[in-house]
Amino acid sequence: MSQQYPSVLLEKAVGEFAKLPGIGRKTAMRLVLHLLRQDLQTVEAFGNAVITLKREVKYCKVCHNISDTDVCQICSNSSRDASTVCVVENIRDVMAVENTQQYKGLYHVLGGVISPMDGVGPSDLQIESLVERVKSGTVKEVILALSSTMEGDTTNFYIFRKLAPYDVKLTMIARGISIGDELEYTDEVTLGRSIVNRTVFTGTM
Amino acid sequence: MSQQYPSVLLEKAVGEFAKLPGIGRKTAMRLVLHLLRQDLQTVEAFGNAVITLKREVKYCKVCHNISDTDVCQICSNSSRDASTVCVVENIRDVMAVENTQQYKGLYHVLGGVISPMDGVGPSDLQIESLVERVKSGTVKEVILALSSTMEGDTTNFYIFRKLAPYDVKLTMIARGISIGDELEYTDEVTLGRSIVNRTVFTGTM
Repeated sequence: MSQQYPSVLLEKAVGEFAKLPGIGRKTAMRLVLHLLRQDLQTVEAFGNAVITLKREVKYCKVCHNISDTDVCQICSNSSRDASTVCVVENIRDVMAVENTQQYKGLYHVLGGVISPMDGVGPSDLQIESLVERVKSGTVKEVILALSSTMEGDTTNFYIFRKLAPYDVKLTMIARGISIGDELEYTDEVTLGRSIVNRTVFTGTM
Repeated sequence: MSQQYPSVLLEKAVGEFAKLPGIGRKTAMRLVLHLLRQDLQTVEAFGNAVITLKREVKYCKVCHNISDTDVCQICSNSSRDASTVCVVENIRDVMAVENTQQYKGLYHVLGGVISPMDGVGPSDLQIESLVERVKSGTVKEVILALSSTMEGDTTNFYIFRKLAPYDVKLTMIARGISIGDELEYTDEVTLGRSIVNRTVFTGTM
């Protein structure tokens, strides 16, 4: 059932919000009416924040992470280990790994994973520039930290083949049961792999 | 745990989205990154739609509904019954009633309900202008269609008192069990009221 909007401007604004992923027309209406109750300055701050971001955003020349500068804070931080590069799918994955505070190396943001179904091939991703980074010789280890999906696995294998000619250690983040998981609720594939890839118990978890 | 954003512009845009009701920082991040993947034109259309709405929106002089013109499409529609006015809380309620296609009269948008807890008093609502509309003499019936809450009831009673001196029929939308509801799952208060306010059975539902 098509709704009758009392105003064309309102309908347009609701339509724009409803294009966002996971936002339906009802939620869009609620958000737009919320903004309408704020003063003009607040609404302008909202609208312009995203326009400014899109206009002025830069991507790090080295790792392709979002950055305000040509080379990002992580890549330009000399106290980080430049010999280790963690390959991730997107910016959110960089933030997720950073939040663990367990990693002190650099990153390489692919911008996606190989997915023929979605029309994403290797040339759409930052794989060539990863090969160039490895070629340059400073990188000793490349850690593959992609999603454990068909597309992630395909991408892992593609990178493995691309980096095979070079003298670099290629590792993959561990797959196994999550911390806090109960065995009986873990899926068979994960549990099976976690037995095959068991590690030496050293007395610490 | 505070997240480290790789870009100040990104953090600002995420912050603006996270101010919206029901949007947390994770969802905000997802929405902003989605917009960042669109081209500049799309992002500008999004940002400007809501700014333009806020700048240029008008409210109908008669019923206070959102409108692109001084008097809204509903109030200026001569085929509608100008002697009946349905009092609602907000614009969404106008759209909800319109969607039923059961109502051919006009509306009066209060802009809220009396709620001392939220600092909303009668003077913050369009109650005076409702009294003025009734005073002018064309209105024969005022239908109260507010939420069935404490605040809605308070507002109903306030309007009842305000309109008492005038020769106008004051009605309230029916409260009872919802169509499709099963009796055993209906709350006591609603079921009790629906028995007290029973209507004559005429053979049609």
